[in-house]
Amino acid sequence: MKNNQFGRMQLPLDTELLELKNIHVLEADVLDTPKAQLIAFLQRAWTPLVTSPAAFDQKLSQLLATPDTTMADFFASAAPLTADIFARLALQLLQFEPETDYDIADPLSAYSTLQLPTFDVEAFQTANDVAHAWYQLLSTHTKNGETYLDYLTQTGYFVPFYGQITGPVFFNGKAQAVFNPHETIHEIVYVEAPLDTDHDGKRDLLKVEVSRPKLTNSGYKAPVLYTASPYNQGTNDTFGEKITHSVDVPLTEKAPNQLTAADVQFQSLSPELPPERIPIGETVLATEHFAKEQSYTLNNYFLSRGFAVVYAAGIGTRDSDGLRDTGGPAETLSTVAIIEWLDGQCQAFTNKTDRIAIPAWWTNQHIAMTGRSYLGTLATAAATTGVDGLKTVISEAAISSWYDYYRDNGLVAAPDTFQGEDMDVLAGDVFSRMQDAGDYLGVKKDFEQVLSQLQKDQDRHSGSYTAYWDGRNYLNQVANIKADMILVHGLNDWNVKPRNVYNLWQSLRELPIHKKIILHQGQHIYINNFRSLDFTDMMNLWLSYKLFDLNNGADTLLPDVLIQDNVTAETWYPVTDWPAATDQYQTLYLDQDHLTETKHQTPQIQTFNDQLSEATFKRYCDDLAGWHADLFKPNTDENALRDNRLIFKTEPLVHPWTIDGTPEITVDVAVDASVGMLSFQLVDYGDAKRLGAKPTLLAKNVLSGAYDWRTDDLYEFMPETQVTPWKMITKGHVNLQNRTHAYQDEVVVPNTFNQVHVTLQPTFYRLPAGHRLGLVIYATDFETTIRGNQNLSYQINLTESQLNLRLADNH
Amino acid sequence: MKNNQFGRMQLPLDTELLELKNIHVLEADVLDTPKAQLIAFLQRAWTPLVTSPAAFDQKLSQLLATPDTTMADFFASAAPLTADIFARLALQLLQFEPETDYDIADPLSAYSTLQLPTFDVEAFQTANDVAHAWYQLLSTHTKNGETYLDYLTQTGYFVPFYGQITGPVFFNGKAQAVFNPHETIHEIVYVEAPLDTDHDGKRDLLKVEVSRPKLTNSGYKAPVLYTASPYNQGTNDTFGEKITHSVDVPLTEKAPNQLTAADVQFQSLSPELPPERIPIGETVLATEHFAKEQSYTLNNYFLSRGFAVVYAAGIGTRDSDGLRDTGGPAETLSTVAIIEWLDGQCQAFTNKTDRIAIPAWWTNQHIAMTGRSYLGTLATAAATTGVDGLKTVISEAAISSWYDYYRDNGLVAAPDTFQGEDMDVLAGDVFSRMQDAGDYLGVKKDFEQVLSQLQKDQDRHSGSYTAYWDGRNYLNQVANIKADMILVHGLNDWNVKPRNVYNLWQSLRELPIHKKIILHQGQHIYINNFRSLDFTDMMNLWLSYKLFDLNNGADTLLPDVLIQDNVTAETWYPVTDWPAATDQYQTLYLDQDHLTETKHQTPQIQTFNDQLSEATFKRYCDDLAGWHADLFKPNTDENALRDNRLIFKTEPLVHPWTIDGTPEITVDVAVDASVGMLSFQLVDYGDAKRLGAKPTLLAKNVLSGAYDWRTDDLYEFMPETQVTPWKMITKGHVNLQNRTHAYQDEVVVPNTFNQVHVTLQPTFYRLPAGHRLGLVIYATDFETTIRGNQNLSYQINLTESQLNLRLADNH
Repeated sequence: MKNNQFGRMQLPLDTELLELKNIHVLEADVLDTPKAQLIAFLQRAWTPLVTSPAAFDQKLSQLLATPDTTMADFFASAAPLTADIFARLALQLLQFEPETDYDIADPLSAYSTLQLPTFDVEAFQTANDVAHAWYQLLSTHTKNGETYLDYLTQTGYFVPFYGQITGPVFFNGKAQAVFNPHETIHEIVYVEAPLDTDHDGKRDLLKVEVSRPKLTNSGYKAPVLYTASPYNQGTNDTFGEKITHSVDVPLTEKAPNQLTAADVQFQSLSPELPPERIPIGETVLATEHFAKEQSYTLNNYFLSRGFAVVYAAGIGTRDSDGLRDTGGPAETLSTVAIIEWLDGQCQAFTNKTDRIAIPAWWTNQHIAMTGRSYLGTLATAAATTGVDGLKTVISEAAISSWYDYYRDNGLVAAPDTFQGEDMDVLAGDVFSRMQDAGDYLGVKKDFEQVLSQLQKDQDRHSGSYTAYWDGRNYLNQVANIKADMILVHGLNDWNVKPRNVYNLWQSLRELPIHKKIILHQGQHIYINNFRSLDFTDMMNLWLSYKLFDLNNGADTLLPDVLIQDNVTAETWYPVTDWPAATDQYQTLYLDQDHLTETKHQTPQIQTFNDQLSEATFKRYCDDLAGWHADLFKPNTDENALRDNRLIFKTEPLVHPWTIDGTPEITVDVAVDASVGMLSFQLVDYGDAKRLGAKPTLLAKNVLSGAYDWRTDDLYEFMPETQVTPWKMITKGHVNLQNRTHAYQDEVVVPNTFNQVHVTLQPTFYRLPAGHRLGLVIYATDFETTIRGNQNLSYQINLTESQLNLRLADNH
Repeated sequence: MKNNQFGRMQLPLDTELLELKNIHVLEADVLDTPKAQLIAFLQRAWTPLVTSPAAFDQKLSQLLATPDTTMADFFASAAPLTADIFARLALQLLQFEPETDYDIADPLSAYSTLQLPTFDVEAFQTANDVAHAWYQLLSTHTKNGETYLDYLTQTGYFVPFYGQITGPVFFNGKAQAVFNPHETIHEIVYVEAPLDTDHDGKRDLLKVEVSRPKLTNSGYKAPVLYTASPYNQGTNDTFGEKITHSVDVPLTEKAPNQLTAADVQFQSLSPELPPERIPIGETVLATEHFAKEQSYTLNNYFLSRGFAVVYAAGIGTRDSDGLRDTGGPAETLSTVAIIEWLDGQCQAFTNKTDRIAIPAWWTNQHIAMTGRSYLGTLATAAATTGVDGLKTVISEAAISSWYDYYRDNGLVAAPDTFQGEDMDVLAGDVFSRMQDAGDYLGVKKDFEQVLSQLQKDQDRHSGSYTAYWDGRNYLNQVANIKADMILVHGLNDWNVKPRNVYNLWQSLRELPIHKKIILHQGQHIYINNFRSLDFTDMMNLWLSYKLFDLNNGADTLLPDVLIQDNVTAETWYPVTDWPAATDQYQTLYLDQDHLTETKHQTPQIQTFNDQLSEATFKRYCDDLAGWHADLFKPNTDENALRDNRLIFKTEPLVHPWTIDGTPEITVDVAVDASVGMLSFQLVDYGDAKRLGAKPTLLAKNVLSGAYDWRTDDLYEFMPETQVTPWKMITKGHVNLQNRTHAYQDEVVVPNTFNQVHVTLQPTFYRLPAGHRLGLVIYATDFETTIRGNQNLSYQINLTESQLNLRLADNH
């Protein structure tokens, strides 16, 4: 295994000693001898669990100092402490296994293979050297993907701090678990949003679940991690399934138009608002509490470290007022209202009727938003309002424009595994007010009205970019962003596709804020529980910097762009940008079934038909993995897709390529009808045990932010055990009527060639030498597009078609 | 969905009222009117979360009393409380969803479809009637598979009891979560076992992790749930993989013998033991503690209910002395030593050197053992010693004879997905002393010696039943059992195969103890988190009865034999026995490719060869699912197994069959060599959406035994979404040299027919009308047997072969 830590600070010895004293690892100055100091450190480390000298000796006797001496024997001897002995001890304390992870005879070289922070082996002589090495050990990851100090924390190291502290305690730039998580106060308030989305003549009240450290009752002001989750008051799964759309419908012709970008610009309305409620009193005590929130494990980690955590589900969810219009301006206002309350700009009440106001008197008004997917999307949305108080956003796998989630170049294009979902289905799914029958009674009609309006606006017959979608494109408001942005996304995320994070990242480039991006090889997941990356530590460093104003240099220490390698497991590297500046471009031409570096001059036309037999069509609908495999497989007789797509491949690469950013495709295409669509996939062809995009569970319940507290499982992307012949790199789709713009519907003249230019989803993909790059051109995508199984024949003029890649330096 | 509750007591109203008072749901007598009483109940239920009248009214307004009146409006009105209103309220409180789960207009009929306990609709008039209905509601399962009272518990209902109680509090015969789980004392002691398995001249000390309620410090004596888990101090996965055996080796000839059962009887040795340690002092205070055990969720549930929980990993595990010899008498003694300490029969020390004794002064010496798989096995083993103090065992998916785990009728036969594992591999895997390099240093040589002895004893070349295996057959000691036994097993468990539980169940029949068996449709899993069965409640009723001596009649209330249906989801029925007494037997004869009810008279011989092409062999080794599918598939050209097995099928059944117990097969077989083996599978052929043997995750982290406490996920066996054409019912294997006895090796004369009689694994399987029963006869089982890919041809004389089934009445 390989350890990757980017959130570790290198500090001068003086500071290290001060910090060790601050967390009582050193009670006073360092001791006289290295051995005495090491014993003292071990005693402190084991304090929560061992309370007799005999038990302490027993533990020592279980550790080796040299290949044939235990630590107990070593301490009883006159032998000096060496770097070799310390390293061996450290590896054992870090839970690495001899033979499996390292050679017990040579612990020092394991430091480099495991990528652990080394210490100066030559200058390992004084008690100060031991203190430095111990400091380093405390901030180094164990085999289980957490710092040794976090491991000790879970054994109860910081329990004696509970009730003794007056504020956060930091170590190596990160807040520690010195707050008793079981004394957290869980209370509910109702924030008054500047909205009346259910048109009842009263501003919408939104339920907020606040978890704050008990110390706030004694004057401590806590920063806030706020997660806006439309899911966390429940979802209407059965109802959502019921209103999911059939995708087995034909592509239909759109009346041509000459619209420009300006024509589809969203015009925001400012509906007249009911007045704010006039409070009849104010209190600091909530009158409603909750037992357990539907929590996000990253937030759990911070709940014992001095942060408050706030969840709100927003308009249209259980216990809140209002009606949700997926992705729209009201939803954003509903998200931001919670921040405004935390920042003292708007009011909240203890319940929906009494008008007893309750301010957020317990916060330092430094707020971060966290969350993945829809949750991260709302965090991004909130940032684009420039709301005061929001210091930073950690936005994971977030949508930056809803058009890029449910549409693509004039086509209805589903997120992976959610065929038939759309804005209305999502709205129905999260409308959890439905789950309280008494509440639903009064709002059912209005909800049905919203749903029907949504169905009209989203217009599944068109697929084009309209003012409706423009109003749900957060990229339009990026210039307002004042919060620092951390973006996290999976390069294999075909649910929220990488274009979402790519476009946001590009648009942030010129803004005067700090921005960071982390790209991993996973799908639609979070990465705060991966063994090979210290994501949680990085976020702790960052949040301590942003929300506690700790001067830890997180802005420069954390890499701006961090990318996980797709070939070698557990490998993460900082790069300059995404895409990085380059002068390496590669144009590939289509010739027979080849992708070539030189253009073939004689005209060549290849054709394919999009229609399948009814039986094959049904089979693929039920077996998307089978369809995807046939798409890539050679054209044997058994392959039912052999006449339904074109495959072009390069020769095996002599040198590896790193494809960086957005591949661009130009094709010259004709179809024998007035409608048509094209899909494209870039494929890595070559036998290899690739990294699995689905993370492997390494250990259950081993991660936790504190003693006796909620846990998370440990994961890693491991190489697959089986060789696979291919892997999709990226893809793209286009409606031939939208060959120029997603907002402009053009005429398709049957059997007439048009140039179509498509930007595929962005990537960062290392294609090893010996592999071939493949391009598949087809029409219906069973996983993504509508599937009318129409009898449409496509002709591709290969000579006028090409693929353009942007390449990065190899790593 | 359908609710199945077997752990609910029906009590007289007087007792119900007393119990309601006991948990302060009723503070005094019932109120004057039904409506007032209902309000009072709701107020009590919501007490932990709602502290103002306005918030209470808000919650009322979210519930419907009638299809168009909220509960708030209903209480404000003069309308009387009706059974219809109460039922509608109850369904909402139980979290069922209108439209999805019931019709809001007709809540009473939902009681029967959801299988909820009904109340007398006609006699629903007084406050007492409301109290009775409320009592019933509290003990009824919500949609999330827990009682409504347990749901309230998770919201904090019993928190005010913390520190106020002097012992357990019961409701409906079950202990409630009135002990603060975060105040549990976690301490370590070292029990001295009557063993010296590492031959160091000192009795083995075994680490025990004790979690006991803080109230024990004030005189409360706690009963104990004890789980013996060899895994829970860590496992040596890499080492275990390294010593896993290749199974791609030929079946070899065994020298014939004339052994009898008496010849292979295990003779126990009583090695001379070092003397007991002489304590130099005694204490009640442990000096070593632990932060978190590797826990079992069923134990977690009980930790807040007055039970102590004890884990021990036994000899050869991390922090303990000794060396483990899988399944042997020493392992059993090591398991039992912990009970003897709890029962005051042997001593423990605070550490391994000081000789400060520490008694189990805090227990009432009523002990139950729990655990699944190896853990359940050790619980069974402990029971067979008749040790005092052990009142009951809940043994899940347990081995009853190690021969039945790693061998079958003279063959090496692996547990599913563990090809190549054996007694030595398991011993290596759980020898967690290896993980403390300092400890391992001193014991490495002895461990290697044990491993090498194990490899000799298990004798993978033979596969026969020997004295070694006889010493690891707990069935030999069943007569000693004094503890009441609860057996739980999956009918699709091909890891610990059903024969293990079947043989134990048969052998318990005549013992003067209480015994119960629960058979589910899962694989190798536990079932305390399934929505459709109140397993946890049943165990609570049972443990309250056995360990607190509560007079709740659990012995008669709980069904003796409870079986889950394999056709209809969420269906469990008590039956009289397993197998049930019957006079329905069905003999089936082999004729061409048919199973027929009448015997064909003309001699018929069919042959198959066991050898595959090298490429096919390799492919199946890497794709066991593919092999299994080909085994069942028709003999098309594509099926690479078409010449390597015989398939016989009945006509589609006119009436369903319920196959109960052990199908028996007799075949007349010849092989063209002096060695040979046969395998058999019974198959359910017929297109159906079957129950998945892999449970579906319904909701994460929703189950918990207490407020702010460890959670479990909710599961259910759901019907698969895809139609499947077949399912294996049961299977069996035999070495032709062991055609008479597993302990007797006979000569196989090439090309000479022998009668072979094989008892397949027991089952309880409902084969619906329209389906066919299939019998597959083959030799090498890629999932189970060794795979020598030998060129062996088998002839089956169909006329002299038959299948005998025992049928039960259909349900």
